[in-house]
Amino acid sequence: MVLPQDGSQRLVIDVLGGAEPRVHDPNAPLLYADDLAAVRGDGIFETLMLRQGEVRNVHRHLTRFRNSAAMLNLPEPDLERWQAATDLAARTFGGGEAALRWVYSRGRESTGLPTGWLTVAPVGDEIISARTTGVKVMTAERGFRLDLSQRSPWALIGAKTLSYAANMAALRAAKERGLDDVIFLSDEGNVLEGPTSSVIVAAGGALYTPPVDAGILPGTSQASLFALAEQRGWSTQQKAMTVPDLLSADGVWLVSSVRIQARVTQLDGRDLPRPDCAAEVEQMATEAVTG
Amino acid sequence: MVLPQDGSQRLVIDVLGGAEPRVHDPNAPLLYADDLAAVRGDGIFETLMLRQGEVRNVHRHLTRFRNSAAMLNLPEPDLERWQAATDLAARTFGGGEAALRWVYSRGRESTGLPTGWLTVAPVGDEIISARTTGVKVMTAERGFRLDLSQRSPWALIGAKTLSYAANMAALRAAKERGLDDVIFLSDEGNVLEGPTSSVIVAAGGALYTPPVDAGILPGTSQASLFALAEQRGWSTQQKAMTVPDLLSADGVWLVSSVRIQARVTQLDGRDLPRPDCAAEVEQMATEAVTG
Repeated sequence: MVLPQDGSQRLVIDVLGGAEPRVHDPNAPLLYADDLAAVRGDGIFETLMLRQGEVRNVHRHLTRFRNSAAMLNLPEPDLERWQAATDLAARTFGGGEAALRWVYSRGRESTGLPTGWLTVAPVGDEIISARTTGVKVMTAERGFRLDLSQRSPWALIGAKTLSYAANMAALRAAKERGLDDVIFLSDEGNVLEGPTSSVIVAAGGALYTPPVDAGILPGTSQASLFALAEQRGWSTQQKAMTVPDLLSADGVWLVSSVRIQARVTQLDGRDLPRPDCAAEVEQMATEAVTG
Repeated sequence: MVLPQDGSQRLVIDVLGGAEPRVHDPNAPLLYADDLAAVRGDGIFETLMLRQGEVRNVHRHLTRFRNSAAMLNLPEPDLERWQAATDLAARTFGGGEAALRWVYSRGRESTGLPTGWLTVAPVGDEIISARTTGVKVMTAERGFRLDLSQRSPWALIGAKTLSYAANMAALRAAKERGLDDVIFLSDEGNVLEGPTSSVIVAAGGALYTPPVDAGILPGTSQASLFALAEQRGWSTQQKAMTVPDLLSADGVWLVSSVRIQARVTQLDGRDLPRPDCAAEVEQMATEAVTG
């Protein structure tokens, strides 16, 4: 799929700018030059999967959105309004797979009023193909100790903020090396998360993911997958893991709302062969995130 | 000074959107909903002092702007164009003191073209009064080890990125405690910098500031002040310091382009009395940043 460069296949909804959410021309500017989202990365977001006119996992995203807002001392978001905007987006965009993003900003410096908007964009080829070909991954030090979130609430660990420049830089560093993605490690060498995904490990018939209190974002897709896997008889657990744990596991995946799942086929140059359980794990992830 | 809430005392210049920089109505939206500045904090900025129609320290800001862009793999900024936009802003805004901000974004997701703009806003009362009353400060762990910038270039330490949510959160945490500002410490307890300022210490007739390779932003105002202080017979030095070093010094200041200097009158609850050298240091800072 090639996107037209004029943004015509995109959809924008102004969520907080009027009496109610309304469709905004994607080819008309929406934000003022002094919006704190744009000049300070001061706000939060969520990315949801929109598929065949339905938005998936919306309650988990609403919960995390509200929690992120609280961590940033933003006014509590009106979740019904965000839900209404999301429904409007789903009706307007129609079929196909798309990434639907909520953005909630502290607003204009000159007015102090929060801004909020929603964008929808078709899912790109690279993302769709990663579901079947998997991803080559490098580990990267994030530079935090595990206990930072307890000691320094201003580090905003666990909030999905708009300040993603370092996450984007880590992804660029991977691409420069001919790789696809990154798994962050803590100072202690613990596995954390990807820049835009959660880490899932299958080993001995169980699924594992790093503990949220290690200073990571609680994953909506990870939570969905674990709920479904337990129904199917898998045991699931949050567990502190290191790189050797990943290398000796049956399989490692990165899960997220839009890419759904991408198996890690290579980690720091070591090949990770496709395990017998791969088809089942990937099917469960797909059902959990899109079903 | 009370700003009108409609932004009418503000100035916006669209730097990269047309054939040349042009004034943009501050009450008209400028940015598209998918600008990576607004949805990922993916870009850089500089804040300069505009005073009586003149912009100060512009070469130091241009140099840091170019370096920040390189660290983020942004296309090299056309510094002549940013200079021309700045000249246009200075001519258009007229007299008084104002904060002039350059913002350079990776641009719209849907086009991949960078965006760049400039805003000017009058300096607020709170900032002006801090020059004479000083600031009460708390220290805050930033959560990085000193060597993070060497090991993890994707942490973007030393680049002035738009991803400032954690800096803003630290300032909010200070205000909640009835304080004015923050000094970040490394994991090792070394003094680093403020969220939007450099730390300057006077002790025994010398001026000190933390070393840039400790993972801080090189300060344009700090560099200006040190250059002038050396002409006036002060010795100046980059030096690793801890909180006890600050408490036992003659004086501690936070310096930045728009607030210029604010003496730290209280650090973590300990009063720091005004030293004999204060008038001279503050006068030098003012001349260095505005002269």
